Amino acid sequence: MFELHKTDKNTKARRATLSTAHGPIQTPFFMPVGTTATLKSLTFEDLNDCQAQIVLSNTYHLYLRPGMEVIESFGGLHGFMNWDKPILTDSGGYQVFSLAKLRKIKEEGVEFQSHLDGSRHFFTPEKVMDIEMTLGSDMIMPLDVCAPYPCEKKEAKESVERTTQWARRTKDYFLKKQTEDKKQYLFGIIQGAIFKDLREQSAREILDIGFDAYAIGGVSVGEPVKDMFETLAWVEPLLPVKQPRYFMGIGLPDQIVKAVGMGIDMFDTCIPTRYGRHGTAFTHQGRFILRNAEHRFDQGPIEKGCECLVCQRYSRGYIRHLASINELTALRLISYHNLHFYIQLMKEIRSAVDNDNYANFQKEFLSNYGSELSENNK
Amino acid sequence: MFELHKTDKNTKARRATLSTAHGPIQTPFFMPVGTTATLKSLTFEDLNDCQAQIVLSNTYHLYLRPGMEVIESFGGLHGFMNWDKPILTDSGGYQVFSLAKLRKIKEEGVEFQSHLDGSRHFFTPEKVMDIEMTLGSDMIMPLDVCAPYPCEKKEAKESVERTTQWARRTKDYFLKKQTEDKKQYLFGIIQGAIFKDLREQSAREILDIGFDAYAIGGVSVGEPVKDMFETLAWVEPLLPVKQPRYFMGIGLPDQIVKAVGMGIDMFDTCIPTRYGRHGTAFTHQGRFILRNAEHRFDQGPIEKGCECLVCQRYSRGYIRHLASINELTALRLISYHNLHFYIQLMKEIRSAVDNDNYANFQKEFLSNYGSELSENNK
Repeated sequence: MFELHKTDKNTKARRATLSTAHGPIQTPFFMPVGTTATLKSLTFEDLNDCQAQIVLSNTYHLYLRPGMEVIESFGGLHGFMNWDKPILTDSGGYQVFSLAKLRKIKEEGVEFQSHLDGSRHFFTPEKVMDIEMTLGSDMIMPLDVCAPYPCEKKEAKESVERTTQWARRTKDYFLKKQTEDKKQYLFGIIQGAIFKDLREQSAREILDIGFDAYAIGGVSVGEPVKDMFETLAWVEPLLPVKQPRYFMGIGLPDQIVKAVGMGIDMFDTCIPTRYGRHGTAFTHQGRFILRNAEHRFDQGPIEKGCECLVCQRYSRGYIRHLASINELTALRLISYHNLHFYIQLMKEIRSAVDNDNYANFQKEFLSNYGSELSENNK
Repeated sequence: MFELHKTDKNTKARRATLSTAHGPIQTPFFMPVGTTATLKSLTFEDLNDCQAQIVLSNTYHLYLRPGMEVIESFGGLHGFMNWDKPILTDSGGYQVFSLAKLRKIKEEGVEFQSHLDGSRHFFTPEKVMDIEMTLGSDMIMPLDVCAPYPCEKKEAKESVERTTQWARRTKDYFLKKQTEDKKQYLFGIIQGAIFKDLREQSAREILDIGFDAYAIGGVSVGEPVKDMFETLAWVEPLLPVKQPRYFMGIGLPDQIVKAVGMGIDMFDTCIPTRYGRHGTAFTHQGRFILRNAEHRFDQGPIEKGCECLVCQRYSRGYIRHLASINELTALRLISYHNLHFYIQLMKEIRSAVDNDNYANFQKEFLSNYGSELSENNK
């Protein structure tokens, strides 16, 4: 499943190939977020143009709309989206805790009301497995409990314990239900908020159960960036070297660059499209608000040297005009560039690891980007 | 400028090539409407994919935003949009009368307040020519006065007279200002609401002044479809055979098919993208509301046999899901199909005229489409 090619000489950055039922993925990689079975304003042609290796989608959203009956009739999510590359689906756990109304955690599972229409639903670890098996995603996440930020240690501890119980049930059910030619990889999720001993407890318990890959969850939920990386520094040494590691919901470009250097293989965030829809574009020199009037007369591309279709074709001045009057096309153009930027960044990251040059790459990237994570800014 | 290849044996449908500074256009043709220098939710790559021959844009909107200073700095509208095929711009007259606030028509021109911020502006025939020369469009429209529907004959008569006065000033100014290697074609616009004698008067006066091409304006402003075609039937015989004829703002697919049979060469409407954004798709079997729940499980394309990228790749069920939850991607996919449908329809129209088969084509199209214009429905 996971062929580790090399680890960078001076950092913990790794290069590997992850094999899935829908083809191999080169790590480290970024997963564009298609919450509702699409990236906002983009198409799968766009994802292919940008050379996306995989797409991530959301169990919670798909379960509510269009509903499993529809997706099942299309033979699963690949068929529904007509996308033949890998898919990862989350468990819906995070959305139940961040979006849904009146959620009630019980031992059996979590009861919640849809954020859309208030309808009542009940997710158990087993039900989530059923859903994700119907979706047919290549990588699936178990139902977990994500503690909010900030939270009391007691609440964080309960979330760790419930996550472990549910992880055990998930694994049992998955083993019973999976078909012989195993096609789906099941992840374990490590919780514990920003408490070192809880993170260690969660890692120990989840590793004990044993999964195909491991994710650090409950990060990027509002905690300071410093705490986020501290959490990563606690957990990473406990993770097996020969399995994929996923830092859930991370992050901004400089955060990804730093996390790769700390040994992470997998990332996802809706930032490229979300920021794109708000008129913010990413470049190697940092991000900027393209909507601003200062770009009115700018005939240059969003980023000089960028090979994306948008930068090859459209000027900042033109896109700024469209963004400033809220034209849908502007959201699309900026989202496209941002997505291309993220995927291109992962290529640069992989190339740097291949060349045992990650420390230099990271230093240079963070400096050019003007990152708060840069040594120069410390 | 206008090379008439043939007229259909049994109808008034015509085939010609219209030469412009940005390349030839095969007639009859459809002009996708890029009001604000973009088609809503689409890009110029999409227009090229669909083999659009030309794009139409709006003087009124571009004058207000981004403003002429910006477009001039890009060397005109072609440079601003980075589109090297032909462009037609309207005069802003229609928008002043339909969008702007507190408009006041004077002999000199029309004073109006921006619908965006209430700022005051004054358009004269000469100023509109200056704007359109700065835009650098291949075909330009003069400032005219469009009577509303319904309106008293007195008001319609005044609009005809003012339109003629302004047309004369436009022509004079254009002749004085145009450079030696004439690059822009100036249209005359015929007004007169739904009054036969006024339409005839307007046609006579505008033809007397003499323009490169002629447009029938003040149609599709709310009048019954019957009146719209009656107006066309009055005016068309008065138009010179060897110049292009433009039926402004028309229309639905069956209306275009009928108008071609009555001798029209040029069309524009924002219907493909506007309907697309509202979840309605066009096919040869008529239009349908793709948002509707009945399409939930439909694995077929929007239109069987359609060669557009959307129909090649996405199912009704998938697009219906996206449309029903208001995903931006759905608006884009349906708009794209609709635009492709319109452009493909024009190809079929041209082919039918080439084969002296327009009467049959029209009959069959209107019947398949379930058109109220079909003989079968009369």
